[in-house]
Amino acid sequence: MKKYSKKKLPLDKTRSLLEPGPIVLVSSQWKDDRSIMTMGWHAMMGYEAIGCYIWDANFSHNLIKKSKQCVINLPEKHLLETAIAIGNTTGADIDKFAEFGLTAEKGRKVQAPLIKECYANFECEVIDTRLVNQFNFFVLQVVAAQSAISPKYPETFHYRGSGVFMVSGENIDRSKFFTPEMLDG
Amino acid sequence: MKKYSKKKLPLDKTRSLLEPGPIVLVSSQWKDDRSIMTMGWHAMMGYEAIGCYIWDANFSHNLIKKSKQCVINLPEKHLLETAIAIGNTTGADIDKFAEFGLTAEKGRKVQAPLIKECYANFECEVIDTRLVNQFNFFVLQVVAAQSAISPKYPETFHYRGSGVFMVSGENIDRSKFFTPEMLDG
Repeated sequence: MKKYSKKKLPLDKTRSLLEPGPIVLVSSQWKDDRSIMTMGWHAMMGYEAIGCYIWDANFSHNLIKKSKQCVINLPEKHLLETAIAIGNTTGADIDKFAEFGLTAEKGRKVQAPLIKECYANFECEVIDTRLVNQFNFFVLQVVAAQSAISPKYPETFHYRGSGVFMVSGENIDRSKFFTPEMLDG
Repeated sequence: MKKYSKKKLPLDKTRSLLEPGPIVLVSSQWKDDRSIMTMGWHAMMGYEAIGCYIWDANFSHNLIKKSKQCVINLPEKHLLETAIAIGNTTGADIDKFAEFGLTAEKGRKVQAPLIKECYANFECEVIDTRLVNQFNFFVLQVVAAQSAISPKYPETFHYRGSGVFMVSGENIDRSKFFTPEMLDG
């Protein structure tokens, strides 16, 4: 399994990793129960808040609702099959860390475990639940973040539906079209 | 400018185009004012609803708030420079359709204009505004959608921050790991 050296990431750089829309793995814990879910339905809400749709049919839904915490972990392509398997099983039946050979790492700010094998980890607290009952939508605040030192740009995967995934492609630098104060993240 | 032949898209296929996290162009109109904004902060909320963070500093914010409608348009790579220019100007000063040579097309369900030069168009109505005051976050319901007949997968671009864009890369088919009822979109 690929190993990363990681550094703390300034919280307002969260958007640089999550705005492109990658599939992420959400880890959570409540008392003795912990789980991981695969998620593609998330949005930046400003530079340090994230909105996530987490179905109440997911075992993770209640863990996050009760603990008011979770970790968003960013996997690279080498974890594609693992992410699919995580998405197609339930934490009600198995411990997904053990089942899929993932390492639970202690966070700095939250109790929920980080996934060591992921490129980046965003520790989050739930800050708004007004849309949870009707839409299963949680608003999270990133309270600590770390990311791999290299590669500079992770090789993420994105879900196109119907079992097809898109892998992140070439990068195009258009910073010349932005003023310095626009280049915020 | 690239031209597409389009077909109606079943509403629950919206996720197949927006879940990967592409930059989109949001068009809106209120009375005689219309505008377009560039957006990367959006999430699927189920199969037919979309959550969008639209800053109140954006000219489009009020057009959408007042009309309770907008259109999410999906551009391909050939519109990257146009999307940057749209993001770096304000509809308070210019008509962006005229300024950037884009064609405003009449929608089937909403008054806001569609952008003909985009790969897909999602006509949306605002269905929840509880998070608008605090978070600038609108919940939209897709009420009509159309997409290009080809290519099968659009060449989208995604924002990595700091003026750098990621273009969608290779597709990996892992449908063999999903049961038929999981292959929903």
